[in-house]
Amino acid sequence: MKRIVYTILFFILLSNVSFAAKVDTVSVFSPSMNRDIKTVTILPADYDSKKEFPTIYLLHGYSGNYSDWVNKAPVIKELADRYSLIIVCPDGGFGSWYWDSPVDPAFRFETFVSKELVSWADQNLKTRKGREGRAIIGLSMGGHGALYLAFKHQDVYGAAGSTSGGVDIRPFPLNWDMAKRLGSYAENSSLWEENTVINLTHLLTPGSLEIMIDCGTSDFFYAVNEELHDKLLLRNIPHTYLVKPGAHNWPYWTNSILYQILFMNEYFKKAESAS
Amino acid sequence: MKRIVYTILFFILLSNVSFAAKVDTVSVFSPSMNRDIKTVTILPADYDSKKEFPTIYLLHGYSGNYSDWVNKAPVIKELADRYSLIIVCPDGGFGSWYWDSPVDPAFRFETFVSKELVSWADQNLKTRKGREGRAIIGLSMGGHGALYLAFKHQDVYGAAGSTSGGVDIRPFPLNWDMAKRLGSYAENSSLWEENTVINLTHLLTPGSLEIMIDCGTSDFFYAVNEELHDKLLLRNIPHTYLVKPGAHNWPYWTNSILYQILFMNEYFKKAESAS
Amino acid sequence: MKRIVYTILFFILLSNVSFAAKVDTVSVFSPSMNRDIKTVTILPADYDSKKEFPTIYLLHGYSGNYSDWVNKAPVIKELADRYSLIIVCPDGGFGSWYWDSPVDPAFRFETFVSKELVSWADQNLKTRKGREGRAIIGLSMGGHGALYLAFKHQDVYGAAGSTSGGVDIRPFPLNWDMAKRLGSYAENSSLWEENTVINLTHLLTPGSLEIMIDCGTSDFFYAVNEELHDKLLLRNIPHTYLVKPGAHNWPYWTNSILYQILFMNEYFKKAESAS
Amino acid sequence: MKRIVYTILFFILLSNVSFAAKVDTVSVFSPSMNRDIKTVTILPADYDSKKEFPTIYLLHGYSGNYSDWVNKAPVIKELADRYSLIIVCPDGGFGSWYWDSPVDPAFRFETFVSKELVSWADQNLKTRKGREGRAIIGLSMGGHGALYLAFKHQDVYGAAGSTSGGVDIRPFPLNWDMAKRLGSYAENSSLWEENTVINLTHLLTPGSLEIMIDCGTSDFFYAVNEELHDKLLLRNIPHTYLVKPGAHNWPYWTNSILYQILFMNEYFKKAESAS
Repeated sequence: MKRIVYTILFFILLSNVSFAAKVDTVSVFSPSMNRDIKTVTILPADYDSKKEFPTIYLLHGYSGNYSDWVNKAPVIKELADRYSLIIVCPDGGFGSWYWDSPVDPAFRFETFVSKELVSWADQNLKTRKGREGRAIIGLSMGGHGALYLAFKHQDVYGAAGSTSGGVDIRPFPLNWDMAKRLGSYAENSSLWEENTVINLTHLLTPGSLEIMIDCGTSDFFYAVNEELHDKLLLRNIPHTYLVKPGAHNWPYWTNSILYQILFMNEYFKKAESAS
Repeated sequence: MKRIVYTILFFILLSNVSFAAKVDTVSVFSPSMNRDIKTVTILPADYDSKKEFPTIYLLHGYSGNYSDWVNKAPVIKELADRYSLIIVCPDGGFGSWYWDSPVDPAFRFETFVSKELVSWADQNLKTRKGREGRAIIGLSMGGHGALYLAFKHQDVYGAAGSTSGGVDIRPFPLNWDMAKRLGSYAENSSLWEENTVINLTHLLTPGSLEIMIDCGTSDFFYAVNEELHDKLLLRNIPHTYLVKPGAHNWPYWTNSILYQILFMNEYFKKAESAS
Repeated sequence: MKRIVYTILFFILLSNVSFAAKVDTVSVFSPSMNRDIKTVTILPADYDSKKEFPTIYLLHGYSGNYSDWVNKAPVIKELADRYSLIIVCPDGGFGSWYWDSPVDPAFRFETFVSKELVSWADQNLKTRKGREGRAIIGLSMGGHGALYLAFKHQDVYGAAGSTSGGVDIRPFPLNWDMAKRLGSYAENSSLWEENTVINLTHLLTPGSLEIMIDCGTSDFFYAVNEELHDKLLLRNIPHTYLVKPGAHNWPYWTNSILYQILFMNEYFKKAESAS
Repeated sequence: MKRIVYTILFFILLSNVSFAAKVDTVSVFSPSMNRDIKTVTILPADYDSKKEFPTIYLLHGYSGNYSDWVNKAPVIKELADRYSLIIVCPDGGFGSWYWDSPVDPAFRFETFVSKELVSWADQNLKTRKGREGRAIIGLSMGGHGALYLAFKHQDVYGAAGSTSGGVDIRPFPLNWDMAKRLGSYAENSSLWEENTVINLTHLLTPGSLEIMIDCGTSDFFYAVNEELHDKLLLRNIPHTYLVKPGAHNWPYWTNSILYQILFMNEYFKKAESAS
């Protein structure tokens, strides 16, 4: 009898699963930038059943926007359901690199993502409050962003994941608007040194942050991810490192997010049982 | 309305999940060894609903037996349900290393696992036939075993996963009964060279086999896994490589199997859609 | 006849060797810290026979004190006799790291060891004056200390030896009182960067200092010693590098000091013949 | 009073030390080659005082002979005295590489050094019998020889040391008469593979042999020594590895032998206390 019930349940679930999670696009006001920032929120199918849910902040890459993840990797809706968690995908600008730009006050994405957006989510969604309930993941520019923000704001995030991340920006001085945000590398090298993830490992103490780094072996960011992995190993900073065949594209990221969210779910379970 | 149904479904599922998968211990006769080999089979909750299921052969480590995985990492039952697949855990002997021992005819575990057991499963369980429906995973001695058997029997298995695997045996000439199976390394070095996974990469062509290698950075097998990863990279053999904090123990393996079976599920989906 | 005399001499020497060297514990006043620092001095058996002797300053590790070396590795008394040199073992505090702490004025061990103690020794013992007559060796925290002080005070020391040394402190931000002496790594990273040995190689010019680095392959400091060795090789800084089986313990250090003092004796002979 | 005696003793010893050890050149008959082989023996100053002494077999390099070591590094006489041990320096031919040449029956130096010479020494000198009392060291061709013979004859030697050793011969196919002894590498590659030290590590089990490897960073053999070191590390074979500034010349070897014999003396002491 139980077996029959399960069979029915599974058919129902499988046939509907892509419709279950609730996706919204909202405008979140950024006081620091004095404008609205578009953001996608994904609520799990069981959103009505509980009081609070772990929340993943999910960052897009250069030239993308808030709708990239849900449109190009719709599997994240299934993952919200499977693991019963909220996903929040903010707009990070065409090329903000998630910095508070030291040379252009119009770009305050560090403040927006790590403070204003989190504050908005905690007030408007049934999020689990505290770093134990928050993770941040991103791809490419967003992989940099996730580690950059989490390293600097460990009080806000308990876990961080980078997929195909630009974890060292210095080998790419002419690319992707970075010089617009920091000034040219030649003339502003200290700003580049201070704002590249690989130089921020001193902010970490062993075990202070759960870290997942994923990069394809054919990615132009593979070398800098290897460097970061080696540095973290040498510095005794525990982290999970995942290397797969693949390049800098959505098939890679669609696959990667399966591992990233599995990792974050394990973190949330561990953090919850420890509290 | 749909949301309410989901909420109910989820509660039912969550409250029962550990009872869903069907676990049996069976005796599988090995013609080559002329004796029965104990084996655990795990059928997913929806076993009655479909005609065939992908199958994962899951190998234990040195000094273990067929019941290790289901007893010490019971999460594999949930994974069988979640991904709707069969798991088969054969006994691999106290220290067989899954070889057909060239010096002791009583040990024919290569033949048993890769031929006799697969044949039995295809006759007695609703397995998906063909390499596209079969993966093999193992831990420690079983990690070696999974790669050893899959490298040599790519017609049988389409994917292989090693967790904390002894992928090069030569640094351990005095350990874990290997000299009982192959003779001493000093006197039988060619047998050791021929039967260590790292020396069998010539059997692979790029893409011929899906490979997942996972090892903890504090594992005594970490160095040999790094060596294998480097060799596979140099030889252009696509493979997924996962490195996490941790050592040679069940907490590591209980976590690792989440990633291994996620990986295998992706393989099965891809193989099915390609056929 | 000569052979008989030798036989007699050897028996006499062997039977008395552990009594030969003269060991004292003295209090050396530190003007910078305005207190006495306990120090062990070891004079060779032939102290009365010559006007001056090369001197080795020998530093203890974290949680140790001035009496560690002579108590736990009494072989250093034989070495003082064999090579006819003075050994001075200052107290370095429970966890001073031999720095002049930039955050705690009570810790002035750089000044004490490299200036005040040397000055005291030159006035009170028959030391050979000048860098050609001085070497500094230490274990663990003291290995760091020996290189740190010698790199910065090449006018004082002509040779430096590290055994199991903490030659890069950054991977250990929470360990061994270092944060008490420098402030937390996250908040005072520039102090950590400026006070870790591996970042001080610019102070060296090829051949300016004789360097001996020894570390066991099972030591938790092995990785940072490999890093330092690689950096020194790349920078063309001549140095002797010794790697042995072993971990972070007194059996290792008791063995290591045999090689360290052999090395220093060769330096003293070369320096003397060059002058 | 004791101090005065010591002072006198030291003066006597220092003034005579270079005359103490007894050096002889003898002819040792080799049954396998049916001819006498010249050999230098060095007996320590206290030879009359004890019944048996540990013995070091010390091999010369290509184009050298039995008298090289004692003539060019006379410090070995002091070391024989200091550590109270016998040193035996056989002739190894102009370019025998200490092999039993598979292509030229006139060269049977493996048999001579590891069997015939040891047998002669045990009968004619007060050697300590058994592997616990024997070590073998060599430079360049002799470094290869020491490891080659000790790896293959662990029943004969308990410890082996290579200085500037040709531990992999394959990068040097045209050099130093090796092709005369093995045939050309192109035509006899399997003989080269079987007779190069780096390929013989399977003969070792962890701890079965004490090993000291020393090579200068400017030596043309440095790269192959690094390779051997890395392989031994990976294979879990404990060994001491010493890297110093320097090239392929007698100043290096004169310094190296100080460390080699210190190492062997520690082995002999440990072996004796264990027996």
